[in-house]
Amino acid sequence: MCGTDKRSDPCPIITKSLSSDSIINLDHGDPTMYKEYWERMGDKCSITITGWQSLSYFSNTSNICWFLEPEFEKEVRRIHSVVGNAVADHYHIVVGNGSSQLFQAALYALSPANALQPMNVVSAAPYYSSYPALTEFLKSGLYKWAGDACNFDKEEPYIELVTSPNNPDGFIREAVANCRKLGKLVHDLAYYWPQYTAITAPADHDVMLFTVSKCTGHAGTRIGWALVKDREVARKMTKFIELNTIGVSKDSQLRAAKILQVLSNCCECARPGETENFFEHFRGQMTERWDRLRGVVKGSDLFSLPEYPVEFCNFFGDFFEAQPAFAWLKCGEEIEDCESFLKNHKIITRSGRHFGENSKYVRISMLDKDNTFNLLLQRMSTIIQNTH
Amino acid sequence: MCGTDKRSDPCPIITKSLSSDSIINLDHGDPTMYKEYWERMGDKCSITITGWQSLSYFSNTSNICWFLEPEFEKEVRRIHSVVGNAVADHYHIVVGNGSSQLFQAALYALSPANALQPMNVVSAAPYYSSYPALTEFLKSGLYKWAGDACNFDKEEPYIELVTSPNNPDGFIREAVANCRKLGKLVHDLAYYWPQYTAITAPADHDVMLFTVSKCTGHAGTRIGWALVKDREVARKMTKFIELNTIGVSKDSQLRAAKILQVLSNCCECARPGETENFFEHFRGQMTERWDRLRGVVKGSDLFSLPEYPVEFCNFFGDFFEAQPAFAWLKCGEEIEDCESFLKNHKIITRSGRHFGENSKYVRISMLDKDNTFNLLLQRMSTIIQNTH
Repeated sequence: MCGTDKRSDPCPIITKSLSSDSIINLDHGDPTMYKEYWERMGDKCSITITGWQSLSYFSNTSNICWFLEPEFEKEVRRIHSVVGNAVADHYHIVVGNGSSQLFQAALYALSPANALQPMNVVSAAPYYSSYPALTEFLKSGLYKWAGDACNFDKEEPYIELVTSPNNPDGFIREAVANCRKLGKLVHDLAYYWPQYTAITAPADHDVMLFTVSKCTGHAGTRIGWALVKDREVARKMTKFIELNTIGVSKDSQLRAAKILQVLSNCCECARPGETENFFEHFRGQMTERWDRLRGVVKGSDLFSLPEYPVEFCNFFGDFFEAQPAFAWLKCGEEIEDCESFLKNHKIITRSGRHFGENSKYVRISMLDKDNTFNLLLQRMSTIIQNTH
Repeated sequence: MCGTDKRSDPCPIITKSLSSDSIINLDHGDPTMYKEYWERMGDKCSITITGWQSLSYFSNTSNICWFLEPEFEKEVRRIHSVVGNAVADHYHIVVGNGSSQLFQAALYALSPANALQPMNVVSAAPYYSSYPALTEFLKSGLYKWAGDACNFDKEEPYIELVTSPNNPDGFIREAVANCRKLGKLVHDLAYYWPQYTAITAPADHDVMLFTVSKCTGHAGTRIGWALVKDREVARKMTKFIELNTIGVSKDSQLRAAKILQVLSNCCECARPGETENFFEHFRGQMTERWDRLRGVVKGSDLFSLPEYPVEFCNFFGDFFEAQPAFAWLKCGEEIEDCESFLKNHKIITRSGRHFGENSKYVRISMLDKDNTFNLLLQRMSTIIQNTH
């Protein structure tokens, strides 16, 4: 959770009760912002699990993914249909212990078992900081990290990871080398939900990864899913999860099913403008946070933020620009190492170096609790004022 | 779940409603025998999880294993203290998505990151059939499967897996090469519980793996734990699980905590002989099943079963012999391939070949539901009668 293997351990302590003197940790994307909403929803999402439920390893032996709970599968298909962010019909669904495991399952499934050389794995910089470590940590002979997709020019097979909206910078992405014959694509669509970006079309790629962590904020349940077009790829991904963890917690699948059900229900029933509409509520909250952050940074030479195009969102039926889960902040000319600079002001962020970028950039979580976010803005204001 | 990678796929269908003509699948160790007990316990083990619980990735940032729920840690320490099967004081606890993941975490933690050669991984035959596949499936450069520990004579570092009671054959084991300096040990104690074997002493090895699947029958929760003596090993195992799945479902940890709590309570309060005492109840059930199976096989030249020594059990305060979760059945001289022979009689088992043994042996689950077990005995009786 603290980035790649090379980073400091143990994990920096999260500040529970913040004071003006506290260290604020925005290094990781812990989605605690969502908690207050679910508290207000009361018992709507509560589930009770009895002692005799879910004893067996198996959920559905007639499914390729034999540990996939039918209720969870149903709600995954439904939420994609309600939101319109991905085509799920005719896709196989593979459930995973979060999308990190599914990412590894996809590498396993798409790399030939008997190749002489390990498969190249690439992603365009700035790429998600965990990709290199996840690809390399077991020194697999099946695949290896081959760096920035934009610099990859070998005539060899490769897997390209396309994260869209991108982590860390929030931009919508397409494959870099779309026309090349030797490439296989894995689309990480963890943030392709309408609180973060306009839903312009249902995605229909070969392998698409999602996770409840970034959709609903339930990171602690460790539930992700893959939509997989090809039956054999789905079978091999399932095999990976069978070997790795013999399936996925049924308790968490049932809980995630309930949460997605409530989400779909509220999308279908709540009138526009009602705060009970989850996506409407969090689009509003993200808009407010981004407006306030841009307000602080505006006119400063010290920091700058990306600008996103305005796009039409099919889900909301209006235009808006992306308001990503992370701020990809660039420091001005006088600061070489933005992470260290902010750390000196008690703001923990993740340096651009971990994303294949330079140290002028940092990634800052926008999904923390209100008091942490407020303190971030306060400190950045003070830094800017003191530098003028 | 269907054994190693080389075995047939998709998973054989589990028979839901059995008839005298049904295929009965005893290939895997699905612990469905336990369901009826938990049904009788009613709401004692039920837990309710609200929508706003467990959103964060983190459980306890002051613990090396930062995703370990404090409540689960407490109940793990308590059950070992109550049962007396392992020393937990002064050990670090690492929670995993089942013990398969913890096994891989242990390999990662005990293999040097920068060795020129992958670490040898060995286990004495017959060994758990998944060990070779789990060690090899990613073609890791960190470790490699080196087969039967009894045949390992290289002057190279190695990890020995000691499964005790052993899967498949139920015998209590010690490390084969205990005195050799280059070896590191991982003890898989999944079956070291008093329904299966006498608890002769609290185990105090360097790395010990347990799982609720085999202790309480809750395989679907995917919760295992490791007791780890060395802080650095615990830290590296935690790192593996962080990279692999970013932790372990909090929902399932909370559920497992509740189940272990009820178990400890019932051990401490129920009078001996009461069926509410979980271990007493299942020791009785396993005794009955083993007596019946031995009764069927007795006097037959066709099949034989291992004999286990009588040992004093500190937990029950009396003597008994092992009654393992699997029957390790040997066929007589006239049958070369016991798995195929039984398959022709609609009994699916796992051949000795997968355990580093010959095909005269098969492993048969003893943990299936009553009706499946009854049908097994009925068919074996018929086979024996027809062969005489």
